[in-house]
Amino acid sequence: MSSLTERMARLIVHGERPYNAEPPLTRLRARYRTPAEDFYVRSHGDLPEIDAAAWRLSVDGAHVGPLDLSLADLRARFPEATVTATMQCAGNRRADMRAVAPVSGDPWDGGAIGTADWTGVRLGDVLRAAGVAPGANLHSDLHVAFESQDVVEGRPYGVSIPLAKAVAGETLLAFAMNGASLLPEHGFPVRAVVPGFAGVRSPKWLKRITVQDHPSTNPMQADDYKLFPPDVTAETANPAKGHTIETMPLNAAICEPARGARLKAGETTIRGYAIAGDRAIVRVDVSGDGGRSWHQATLEHEAGAPFAWTFWEIVLDLPSGERDLVVRAWDSAGQTQPARPDETWNFKGYLSASWHRVRVEVA
Amino acid sequence: MSSLTERMARLIVHGERPYNAEPPLTRLRARYRTPAEDFYVRSHGDLPEIDAAAWRLSVDGAHVGPLDLSLADLRARFPEATVTATMQCAGNRRADMRAVAPVSGDPWDGGAIGTADWTGVRLGDVLRAAGVAPGANLHSDLHVAFESQDVVEGRPYGVSIPLAKAVAGETLLAFAMNGASLLPEHGFPVRAVVPGFAGVRSPKWLKRITVQDHPSTNPMQADDYKLFPPDVTAETANPAKGHTIETMPLNAAICEPARGARLKAGETTIRGYAIAGDRAIVRVDVSGDGGRSWHQATLEHEAGAPFAWTFWEIVLDLPSGERDLVVRAWDSAGQTQPARPDETWNFKGYLSASWHRVRVEVA
Repeated sequence: MSSLTERMARLIVHGERPYNAEPPLTRLRARYRTPAEDFYVRSHGDLPEIDAAAWRLSVDGAHVGPLDLSLADLRARFPEATVTATMQCAGNRRADMRAVAPVSGDPWDGGAIGTADWTGVRLGDVLRAAGVAPGANLHSDLHVAFESQDVVEGRPYGVSIPLAKAVAGETLLAFAMNGASLLPEHGFPVRAVVPGFAGVRSPKWLKRITVQDHPSTNPMQADDYKLFPPDVTAETANPAKGHTIETMPLNAAICEPARGARLKAGETTIRGYAIAGDRAIVRVDVSGDGGRSWHQATLEHEAGAPFAWTFWEIVLDLPSGERDLVVRAWDSAGQTQPARPDETWNFKGYLSASWHRVRVEVA
Repeated sequence: MSSLTERMARLIVHGERPYNAEPPLTRLRARYRTPAEDFYVRSHGDLPEIDAAAWRLSVDGAHVGPLDLSLADLRARFPEATVTATMQCAGNRRADMRAVAPVSGDPWDGGAIGTADWTGVRLGDVLRAAGVAPGANLHSDLHVAFESQDVVEGRPYGVSIPLAKAVAGETLLAFAMNGASLLPEHGFPVRAVVPGFAGVRSPKWLKRITVQDHPSTNPMQADDYKLFPPDVTAETANPAKGHTIETMPLNAAICEPARGARLKAGETTIRGYAIAGDRAIVRVDVSGDGGRSWHQATLEHEAGAPFAWTFWEIVLDLPSGERDLVVRAWDSAGQTQPARPDETWNFKGYLSASWHRVRVEVA
């Protein structure tokens, strides 16, 4: 295994403590399944160093017969499951929003996203073993809270998801990524994988799962990762009134050519990704003239992977000059993206999902 | 019961044969549950006149033990279910798209939508009684085709929905609307109600249900109600390449004040609806200055009715002059609407769902 230092050298590092980094978009687009060492890292505290042999996961809370599980218990007691799913930070593409007005947080380009085969056990199986009966409870207002071993401002990292999502077949307690044990920066030995939801709801370095009648009161859940209207500022924000970010909106990015690339006039291959939370991508429009005319890209999607991204590709004939390449996607509800970043601007810079624009020089 | 002629007089009639009509928006916004006589009507052929006592529904197809059911059989054999759900035409708000470039079809304002308590039996219960086992089949590529008694260009009206949606708890064979038998123009004696999907997939005057391994080959399914890119025309459209409209996109409309209203300067109440297909509305932004500044409306939503619209209301202080009122909604995935109708324009005028703008004169 490479060292963390070696892996950091491969990425665009936004910060070292906490460690936040993303791959260049051309490398991100090279493979449908993102290699672990190219996968974006979003941390809120120092990376915990965990001894897998000593690791325990406790499960407790309402309607639950408490469990205390070792990694061997997890593997032995529950069937293994693999889900191909995309993970995406709520701040992905925040850099585009900064062009409108200042926002807080790291200036992610379009690389705070990646797709992997996640292998582990279904969280629903673990909850059922703990006595959580899906039927009645599913319709009540129960939440599944996670607590992790990383520490943020003196408290363990903690978030929650609705019980209905926790028992959905796609939600995992994962111990492997693309067939290998999790890397330390990706949550070794066990992380949650909550496909379709913002990455913040898929905690790494898990230590405790609690079923409860309210969302997590941890600041990560109660205060952060909330979507506010454009007129709200850091000073006026009332977290209780913000929208808790869970399922991510429709988004798309151009990965190749890179912004500012110098190209030869003529046929140019343009490639990228698109994703629609819990929906399917049905069309991707690409423009070589700033959005005046549109052409439909060819789509590539993994069958049977509803929570994985769609890769797209198109060849456009670009005349010489300065050209604005633009992409917009459409989902299975006939929904498309807003055109301009000011239409979704918020002071936290979350859910930046307007048309992605890349200016290139064609000679 | 009022006569059809009396009911037609209450509505804005786009055509008499087939009969297509919508209510004025102010009346639409008056009640959360739209009275049947104010509910939009979209027909593709003449209204069939059906004797309820003689009416039969046949259920057949793959994996099915055929059934032949009278209305009394339906009521006696299956538990009654009521679902509060919004029905919406795929062409709702088409008039806004016509301002960009010509489109085919009736120029619906924002009234091709309505919400009712639909009472009937669950389609899933009927399919299970016919031997369709949910488990295995759900994951296969089965479709449930409907055939109706109305005739369109010489053929019975026919469409289909995926089996997974057909057996979902919200999908009904409805015989009542807001507690009364269906009116003839709304599908008497029995219609499908497929919440969240475009109205075209909720056929009226049902006569046959077939489980099959392919979507309906009826032109209504195979050729019509497809979403095309902006560069496609009636001459170049290949229906096989269009997106089959099922779940409807995020949308919102201003119902009061009416377009062109003359108002007094000062506090003005603005009201409307918003809807998000199979998602929840989490925020509605309203602007009194054409979209430069936004304010958040108060939301009213029926609890436990995930497929019903959200009513919204806000009081804005409007200075005198010509004012553009604008609304945009946000759904539970943090998704918002495109700003301009040209961003979603298509030659059929479907899924017109950009920001709704209403110009008023403030004196």
